[in-house]
Order: sequence, then structure tokens, then C-alpha cells
Amino acid sequence: MGMKCIGVDVGGTSVKMGLFEVTGELLHKWEVTTRKEEGGKYILDDVGASILEKLKELNIPIDQIQGAGLGIPGPVLPNGYVEVCVNLGWRDRYPERELSEMLHGLPVKSANDANVAALGEMWQGGGKGYHDIVMVTLGTGVGGGVIIDEKIVSGRHGLAGEIGHIHIRGDETETCNCGGVGCVEQVASATGIANEAKRMMASKDLPSSLRSFGQQVTAKDVLDEAKAGDPLALEVMEIVGHYLGLLLSQVAMTIDPEVFVLGGGVSKAGQFLIDTIDHNYEKFTPISKNKGSIVLATLGNDAGIYGAARLILD
Amino acid sequence: MGMKCIGVDVGGTSVKMGLFEVTGELLHKWEVTTRKEEGGKYILDDVGASILEKLKELNIPIDQIQGAGLGIPGPVLPNGYVEVCVNLGWRDRYPERELSEMLHGLPVKSANDANVAALGEMWQGGGKGYHDIVMVTLGTGVGGGVIIDEKIVSGRHGLAGEIGHIHIRGDETETCNCGGVGCVEQVASATGIANEAKRMMASKDLPSSLRSFGQQVTAKDVLDEAKAGDPLALEVMEIVGHYLGLLLSQVAMTIDPEVFVLGGGVSKAGQFLIDTIDHNYEKFTPISKNKGSIVLATLGNDAGIYGAARLILD
Repeated sequence: MGMKCIGVDVGGTSVKMGLFEVTGELLHKWEVTTRKEEGGKYILDDVGASILEKLKELNIPIDQIQGAGLGIPGPVLPNGYVEVCVNLGWRDRYPERELSEMLHGLPVKSANDANVAALGEMWQGGGKGYHDIVMVTLGTGVGGGVIIDEKIVSGRHGLAGEIGHIHIRGDETETCNCGGVGCVEQVASATGIANEAKRMMASKDLPSSLRSFGQQVTAKDVLDEAKAGDPLALEVMEIVGHYLGLLLSQVAMTIDPEVFVLGGGVSKAGQFLIDTIDHNYEKFTPISKNKGSIVLATLGNDAGIYGAARLILD
Repeated sequence: MGMKCIGVDVGGTSVKMGLFEVTGELLHKWEVTTRKEEGGKYILDDVGASILEKLKELNIPIDQIQGAGLGIPGPVLPNGYVEVCVNLGWRDRYPERELSEMLHGLPVKSANDANVAALGEMWQGGGKGYHDIVMVTLGTGVGGGVIIDEKIVSGRHGLAGEIGHIHIRGDETETCNCGGVGCVEQVASATGIANEAKRMMASKDLPSSLRSFGQQVTAKDVLDEAKAGDPLALEVMEIVGHYLGLLLSQVAMTIDPEVFVLGGGVSKAGQFLIDTIDHNYEKFTPISKNKGSIVLATLGNDAGIYGAARLILD
């Protein structure tokens, strides 16, 4: 048996953990509930205890573990400092040091969870085999993660990968959660796609199978009906593809990754979504035929534990 | 005397060279004419001979030189291969290997000149003391260079830093040299600023001191008159600032550099230009008060030799 490593993905509801071979094979996966009471003070205790218990159960001595990585749902400074993590109630902490102490000095490294998920997809997911990837997560919001030379680019102010809040749409009138207007997230998240469909149903006379869903229409409905050829749903997705194609083009002409990895619930639409984006991406990048291609994430909710485990292997 | 290094910046008209202390002090600067005849076959011979002659003249043995860096006006692959360099007539060459041979095996490393200039500004220019910078060169065109962790990000298809060709303006009707429409370069280069002024003079009745320049109006005229308070020139610069502020915001939310370094002829407008951009950059980045600031390049045409010399120090 070779050396192993541990990935911990701390979420607002549960903490996911995985035990991996350092070569990337997931051996065991388990989770504990995230106890957010009292400023989240029990979360790391629970994680530490759970890891030690799991190693005991599996009869794996801790000196066979190279280290543990920790994905945190908020900004993490390069030295591991977390000023504030709203989702967990944390303030003014060094989670990687705390967890390391609980694990008898095992090396622990932490990073923001969106960036960690991108690293996971690079290591064993849709971006496997590549060194420079940009992950675009199309979920309730739009998140991102930038990996260059197999390392997370977190930026100096925690803004790197915040591609969901890039201003992209000049004719947007509603305000985004971030305070901006016309963010990528407002048009390309699951919420944004559903909103776009509602707007279009209200403003156009076009008959559409989407009308039966009314105000309850979801991004999945839009994608399903678009695939089935519904003209209104197709028009909505063409708008989404326009702005996502533009976003990819902007990122390509900034850092030129090898691939863009699409994740999140919306990406379940698969090749149809890629095609919708791709011709717009081409249109906005006439300067070169050679550019990063678009692929799908493959790890789903496990991307976080994979990426956290990979964090410690540098 | 400590170890030294050499920076070579190959341009279409002349090749600039500099001898540096490895600590960054420029000791000597000289240049030779770029002989472009016969597919540029003499250029590297001239460079090699000139370097050896200069070292002899200064009585510096070559074993005091750590290496030489080479900035090339075209795409350079990570292994030093240049498929084609239109400006020099080169095709299918490994310039760093060729120059190394001429210099008796001295280590030579090459990269694209825009990226190299960014590295120079990071080392000893406007970005000194920082590790992550994005250079924006506002000249005849708009160029860029991305440095992360003190290293050039060149991208996998040579597209990194091509921020001048990011599509940014939806209402543009003319086509850019790259084949796109609405590129940053079309509005924010020296050419773009002059064009914008001509358009506005034609479309608006506003009296303006710019009208005396007629069709010969230049970006410098626009900037001078804007600083002097001319309303039409100010309106032109507000448009330029709008799109450059948006560009910086997009880049900040992708890789979050410590600073943006503005170079090129247009940047001679100094603090006025920074202010014009900055309030738009703020407007488009409401997500965070903390973000990379905007500074001016300081090395002018020497950025290339500084950056080339820095290339070899990694």
C-alpha cells in the first residue's frame, strides 16, 4: 500500500471527507453534519475526530497519510487565515493549523472551496491531464476556479475566479446580489436561466411548451424543452450561450487555459450546452482558431474532496 | 563585481540590448539595426556578435554572465520554438538555441515581447515589489502581459495577454484587424481614441477645441484638451475610461492581480488617465473594495530589455 492523503470539503450542511491514494484513487468517502452553532466552533473538532476514527477503523497508521487538504466556503488567505466565513460562522481563525493540531501535526493546507473543486477536476475529473484549466460552475449562482501550472490562482484579494460577477450584459436592469448590474450570474446561473425564460414568456407572443410551467419554470425545464426544439426555450439558451461564449472568450484572451471545465447543475445538459456556448465563443475569438476547448466536469459533488486531497500533494 | 545577465529585445527596426547586474541595475545599453533581409537570417548573428564584442570591450569574461533573455515580437512556444514571426521574417526556428550556440553555450531563454515587457515592469518598473501584475500597453494597439508568481503566463495557444482583442463594446460597427468587432483596441488604443474623437466631432454639435485639429486629431490632442477641460474631449475620455474600467474589472475578477501597470504612449497622460479609468473600474467591481490598484509603467522602451534579462534569472 502506498502513501495516502485526505480531502475535506466543508459545506454549510455537511462536511464531506475522502481518503485517497496519492495517485488519485478514492478509497473511502464519508461525511459528518456541519454543526454551525456557537460560531461553528465544533466543526473542526468533529472533522478531526471523524478522521482519526476512520483511520482507526481502517487500521491505517497516521504516518501513512501525507497530509490533509481543507476546502472552505469563503476567502482563505495564502497563510491559511480566515478573517470571516459567513456560511460557517467562523471569524478570525487559522483552520488549517487547528486541524493539524488535532491530527497530531499532520500537514494540513486550506483554500477556498470553489478553487479547490477546480483543482479536483484538474486532478481526476474533466480537466485530467491538463495543467491550466478554468472551471465554470453553473449552479444557483455562477462560480469559477482558475488553475495555472497545476496550482490554484487565488489572487491577492480573494477575487480570482469570481467570474460570475463579471459585468457582461449592458441591457440588464435588475441588480445582482453583489451590487452590480448585468453580471454573468444574472443570465447564466440556474436562477438566471429561469428568469430569462419568464421574461421572454412575458414579452413575446411566441407559443411555447414552457408556458405550462408558468412562474415555476426551472433551468432544467428550459434546457429540456430547448433540446426538444421549443423555439422560445432555444431563444433563451441562445442568449445564455451568447454571454457564456463571450465570458470564455474574455478569459481565453487573458490567461488562455488548455480547457474550460463546465460544472454545476446546469452542466447536466451536457453536449447541448457546450454547443450552445461554443459557436458564440468562436464568434468572439476570431483572433485564433487555437484556443482552450470546452469540456464537462465529471466529479460532481466529489470535486471538493478530490481537490482538497490534491492541495496537500504540492 | 557580482554576476550579470543580458536582456535582448528584438524589434522590427532595431534590437535593443542591455547588460544588467542580476540585482537589476542596468549597466550598459546599446542597440543594433534589425536586418530583416533574407528572412531575417542575420538578426541573431548580429546580436551574438554584438554581445561578444560588448563584453570584450568592457573586459567582462562570459563566465560572469548568468545568461541572456530574448524578447521576440511574435508567439514563442514554451520550448522556445517560433513557428512564424511575421515582423522579422522568421519561420520554423529555435532562436534561443541559436543564440546560445553563438554565445558559447550561454543559457538563453526567449518569450513574446509584450509578456517580456510586463516582466520587466514587475522587476524594476511600475510593478516593482509585486508578484502578480497585469500590464496594459496602450499604444498604436492595445497589448497586455500577465505575470503570476513572478512568472509570465503565456497560455497554451499564445493567446494569454491578448486583452486588446477582448470584445467589450456592443455598439461598435467597424471591424478590428483581428476580424472581431468591438475590441478593446478599437476604443482604447491611440488610434481608437483619435477615431472616437473624430466620430464625436461628426455626430455632436458641441463646440470643442479639438475641432481645430480636424481629421489629424491624435490621442495626445484628445488627452491634452481633456485635461484642459474641453467637454467633447472629456466625453471621449469618459467612453475610453468606461471600457478600460470594464476590462480591468473583468481581469480582476478572473486572476485578481496586485496591480495593473499602464504603459504605452497613451499612458503618458499619467494620473489623469488613471482617474478616468479608476471610477469606472470601481463601478464595475462592486463585489469588493479590495482589488488591484492601477499604476503607471516607468521603464518606457527599456521594459523589454529589463524583462528579457529577468527571464533568465528563474
